[in-house]
Amino acid sequence: MMMDAAVLNKPLDIEVKKVSIPVPNADEALIKVYCIGVCGSDIHYYEHGKIGRYEVKEPLILGHELAGEVVEIGERVTNVAVGDRVAVEPGVACGRCGHCKSGRYNLCPDVVFMATPPVDGAWAEYVTIRSDFLFQLPDEMSYEEGALLEPLSVGIHAMMRGKATLADRLFVSGLGPIGLLAIQAAKMVGITEIYASDVVPFRRELAKEMGVETTIDPLNENVKDQIAELTGGKGVSLVVETSGNERAISDTVKIVNNGGRIVLVGLPTAGEIPFDVNQLIDGEIDVYGVFRYANTYPAAIQVLSRSQINIEKIITHRFALSNIKEAVEIARTEKDTSIKIMIYPNKEL
Amino acid sequence: MMMDAAVLNKPLDIEVKKVSIPVPNADEALIKVYCIGVCGSDIHYYEHGKIGRYEVKEPLILGHELAGEVVEIGERVTNVAVGDRVAVEPGVACGRCGHCKSGRYNLCPDVVFMATPPVDGAWAEYVTIRSDFLFQLPDEMSYEEGALLEPLSVGIHAMMRGKATLADRLFVSGLGPIGLLAIQAAKMVGITEIYASDVVPFRRELAKEMGVETTIDPLNENVKDQIAELTGGKGVSLVVETSGNERAISDTVKIVNNGGRIVLVGLPTAGEIPFDVNQLIDGEIDVYGVFRYANTYPAAIQVLSRSQINIEKIITHRFALSNIKEAVEIARTEKDTSIKIMIYPNKEL
Amino acid sequence: MMMDAAVLNKPLDIEVKKVSIPVPNADEALIKVYCIGVCGSDIHYYEHGKIGRYEVKEPLILGHELAGEVVEIGERVTNVAVGDRVAVEPGVACGRCGHCKSGRYNLCPDVVFMATPPVDGAWAEYVTIRSDFLFQLPDEMSYEEGALLEPLSVGIHAMMRGKATLADRLFVSGLGPIGLLAIQAAKMVGITEIYASDVVPFRRELAKEMGVETTIDPLNENVKDQIAELTGGKGVSLVVETSGNERAISDTVKIVNNGGRIVLVGLPTAGEIPFDVNQLIDGEIDVYGVFRYANTYPAAIQVLSRSQINIEKIITHRFALSNIKEAVEIARTEKDTSIKIMIYPNKEL
Amino acid sequence: MMMDAAVLNKPLDIEVKKVSIPVPNADEALIKVYCIGVCGSDIHYYEHGKIGRYEVKEPLILGHELAGEVVEIGERVTNVAVGDRVAVEPGVACGRCGHCKSGRYNLCPDVVFMATPPVDGAWAEYVTIRSDFLFQLPDEMSYEEGALLEPLSVGIHAMMRGKATLADRLFVSGLGPIGLLAIQAAKMVGITEIYASDVVPFRRELAKEMGVETTIDPLNENVKDQIAELTGGKGVSLVVETSGNERAISDTVKIVNNGGRIVLVGLPTAGEIPFDVNQLIDGEIDVYGVFRYANTYPAAIQVLSRSQINIEKIITHRFALSNIKEAVEIARTEKDTSIKIMIYPNKEL
Repeated sequence: MMMDAAVLNKPLDIEVKKVSIPVPNADEALIKVYCIGVCGSDIHYYEHGKIGRYEVKEPLILGHELAGEVVEIGERVTNVAVGDRVAVEPGVACGRCGHCKSGRYNLCPDVVFMATPPVDGAWAEYVTIRSDFLFQLPDEMSYEEGALLEPLSVGIHAMMRGKATLADRLFVSGLGPIGLLAIQAAKMVGITEIYASDVVPFRRELAKEMGVETTIDPLNENVKDQIAELTGGKGVSLVVETSGNERAISDTVKIVNNGGRIVLVGLPTAGEIPFDVNQLIDGEIDVYGVFRYANTYPAAIQVLSRSQINIEKIITHRFALSNIKEAVEIARTEKDTSIKIMIYPNKEL
Repeated sequence: MMMDAAVLNKPLDIEVKKVSIPVPNADEALIKVYCIGVCGSDIHYYEHGKIGRYEVKEPLILGHELAGEVVEIGERVTNVAVGDRVAVEPGVACGRCGHCKSGRYNLCPDVVFMATPPVDGAWAEYVTIRSDFLFQLPDEMSYEEGALLEPLSVGIHAMMRGKATLADRLFVSGLGPIGLLAIQAAKMVGITEIYASDVVPFRRELAKEMGVETTIDPLNENVKDQIAELTGGKGVSLVVETSGNERAISDTVKIVNNGGRIVLVGLPTAGEIPFDVNQLIDGEIDVYGVFRYANTYPAAIQVLSRSQINIEKIITHRFALSNIKEAVEIARTEKDTSIKIMIYPNKEL
Repeated sequence: MMMDAAVLNKPLDIEVKKVSIPVPNADEALIKVYCIGVCGSDIHYYEHGKIGRYEVKEPLILGHELAGEVVEIGERVTNVAVGDRVAVEPGVACGRCGHCKSGRYNLCPDVVFMATPPVDGAWAEYVTIRSDFLFQLPDEMSYEEGALLEPLSVGIHAMMRGKATLADRLFVSGLGPIGLLAIQAAKMVGITEIYASDVVPFRRELAKEMGVETTIDPLNENVKDQIAELTGGKGVSLVVETSGNERAISDTVKIVNNGGRIVLVGLPTAGEIPFDVNQLIDGEIDVYGVFRYANTYPAAIQVLSRSQINIEKIITHRFALSNIKEAVEIARTEKDTSIKIMIYPNKEL
Repeated sequence: MMMDAAVLNKPLDIEVKKVSIPVPNADEALIKVYCIGVCGSDIHYYEHGKIGRYEVKEPLILGHELAGEVVEIGERVTNVAVGDRVAVEPGVACGRCGHCKSGRYNLCPDVVFMATPPVDGAWAEYVTIRSDFLFQLPDEMSYEEGALLEPLSVGIHAMMRGKATLADRLFVSGLGPIGLLAIQAAKMVGITEIYASDVVPFRRELAKEMGVETTIDPLNENVKDQIAELTGGKGVSLVVETSGNERAISDTVKIVNNGGRIVLVGLPTAGEIPFDVNQLIDGEIDVYGVFRYANTYPAAIQVLSRSQINIEKIITHRFALSNIKEAVEIARTEKDTSIKIMIYPNKEL
């Protein structure tokens, strides 16, 4: 049985072609993909053919932010049934190494993560995955919300790593999909006083629509001074950096209060970023790296299905799988007006 | 200079009489009390003249849930100014013992806590307090909200003690002021799936108005079975007990999931309560006692001034100080229809 | 291929007979058992045929505290090799449920735990187990230490659950194998001020030999008063209860300091145990149930192979497998003089 | 009443002269200084006249690592008595700000810290301090140990900040007084596998004497490779940086394992230090700044008085106060052979 899939042959060369529909193992399910997002990492592979030590050496199917319908299950699968609407957590950890056993399965060295070479992703009509990484979507949640659980999970994990609580005043640096969803994650853990910055006006506007009190333009304003003014001199106890911008990363130490916490999410292009270590020490600051996420899907589903939090606002474009080339080109070249682009492999738009 | 104050002479004998207006020390402020709540402990002293080892041996002014206006400050006070609207945290900890130094000042053995014999409370026109226990109210917050920060703090502290997160499904046992405000505190930390029980229909109704999905009548329903049904078999990861009822306390171990957490807030009248220790061990359950609160006011003010959370709904009655006798009698005898009674020492109603 | 194994036919009826040597799956290893302890739970099954909901309905091999040599490995096993000396962690968790994924695999509802009906244990010449539950023993460690890692793990887990630190003053109630090893675990996490009680003089003596400052006889001394005297009035911040005695469990709340922590390990025979909940609340005490352990073996091996801590002292008797009947009878009837009995399935003694 | 004190007039100009014996306030005690260490910060003030924003504008008495005898107490002092041997924690926090109330009093913006301009230290015969910062020394502990509790506290605080446990494998970078005492602190919290580096052979030797398995010479060895070899490829989960060396600080991110923790203690001279942020993110690493310490003295006394841990080994030189000039010059110029220099203000040596 064959299906359509978008295959990256080499940088900038992507095409939709027929490939075999995968067959689920005993502990896997086959998912009919309803919608799947375009992630910054997908575009990076599309453009450069590699990220760090991961290199696209063989044709690869990209995409890992998805939701769909269970259409077949292996013989040992009991947690989902055919017909279930599900969100897919796209990284299958081994469950047996020290990291997995201690609850940090995102650090599993043997994780099989979609769309990370040589593992295929799911810009395709169907995909298989081990069923314990599938999560039923309640009726209140759309497939789009289900797909967005993946980038939202990064935001939630950032809050967990940063020990975020209702007592925090938060500054989010960078308002791409991760930054905007980190803000929603912050609201989910009770933070109400949120400031954010981005160089792109469109993104700052969207942040305001999504509940940020005041946004800052880091090109034309001094971030630290602005925060001081906006908080009546109190400053922020938590900074979440999602831009990957070298200057923004370096400034986090200067922006956060003494005793505060910095969460680094955005990967920089530069090799090494300078930090004011004297301030980090004198201010007794914490810095936490964030790599993907762990244990976020059940909580996210529970909260989103019961709250007013709107994460779909970040979707700016929608395409059928057949238009994947246009989708990735917009993602690559129109960063000032696009946030999240959603692909629909099983319908025409 | 004299002022009106409600003085408890002996059990059931309370009268408003003239006493001296207190004079603030160098690090204290004089507060003109705008409103002040009637707490269960006030009523217990009113009725029985003692709580545990604390006994009313001399005439005592009760009341410790208050907000008001700063009308005079000592020479070393800098954090508030005359004219400020403030909430008053009513327990002044020493700041020097091991508990204080490690952040648990609610356990300070030398704390001076209002309306705990022999320390006078604030059912009076004025009261003094060390200024670091005063917190400015933003314009968005009413004095009533300021006074309710005290019982709300118990709820917030219960959430902190119980390590509550957005991932929890919560059951709150008891829907008096503390139970209802614990629910609001749960929402403040991101919990969206909340179940609650009380024997009084009026309280269950109020809980629904304040955002509880479904309430349970523990006299006519099996709490554990109801929760299992309401959660689709998932159960609850967190139980907060505020009723003080012996059976309710004992049942917490049976209700919470394996790996879950129980927070005990409500003081029972019984001496010793039976617990199923085999289940506590097999289920690897945590139990946390909650005594008052610490470090809650700044966070509570920050969140309440920015959110839709409504805590004033628990106020069912309002009285001038001159009607204190009527107020405490209603609190004592009409538990089925009263939740929080608010006293206004400086105006007639 | 056949081997000797001690099979429990029904209560008090145990015999050594020939059974098939198990064959390892692809991800399992076959272990030649060097030595294996007799645990209280083994004796409980031997005597009563059941523990709680677990019942011996078919003949069962008991035993789960073991170390041995790898003699065969499945095709996918890479972490151990034939000839390795290994300790065996006897409960194989699923690695896929919520508890496993969040680091508490001891709560896995699908765990396969040796010697818990209907799962056979390892009072036998050979046993198979999934290889990620095997841990290499360095040359510095004996097989006996390897086998004792299992009960020691309970002690280490009790310390982790109880957030034990060098700052604690500790009281351990009960000085059977778990109590004695909890004391060694306490030393491993830096606790130096340790008090302990048991009704059996022999056990108190052994505790002193194993590093306890002063022991208490709870039948002839008031535990709380003794602790107050021994600590110069400071009391203890941490209590670990391992006796399972109803009175001892109930007293933990009275013994621990305000702000302190209680860890419950010993299962009582009584259904429900009374607790002074007023003290638990006023003193803001934590109570933690302990069920088995998780993530303890690597740390335990690391520490034991480098420290002076001696856990083998708890071994009071040694038997060949052929003498299993005598071994379990001593364990059952001579509690005043036996602590840990070790079985050697592959040699005569 | 006059006493001898060593006064720093300006950089490199220190002299012993007569100054008034301070008079204790109601909540203070007067301490006859038995011994007091020379700290790196003292030498920095001696040499440069300032550290960061703290500048010696008026003649200043240095020194803040001390123990002595209580010779007079204020009227409200109850925790110590005349004749008590005490260690002095040299920073008096306000006890009233948000940091103090939440248990991080080391971040108190109003702390009065000895030998930090314009606050005098205790290179003098007597000094006063608020009595809640005095801790009785048991007979088992020497005054020297009492004085060394101050730098040891930095090590203990580093362990607390870094969430150090017995499960960690530790690398300590820099073997001056703080590095050597961080190693002792590591042993106090149960860490047994410790590696360390310093460029000075004398320091590496001392580290070995004080219990480090193997030391590394960072000038002639590749630290990461050496650690990999020494740990059989396992690497270290915790890195504590005390050298302040720019390269060493930068390398911490490369040395620690994925999921590991870095604690930064040593202040660099360089403004900004480059960090490999991609590795910090991909490896989900924590970085913790350490500023002084909080709540360390009681635990340190409890442990040191009961353990074999020897911290006095770091004392390489002893001088009477009259020889302070020689002492500080050795500290300033002979870093290859001196570690901790101890001053005795009340006796001749």
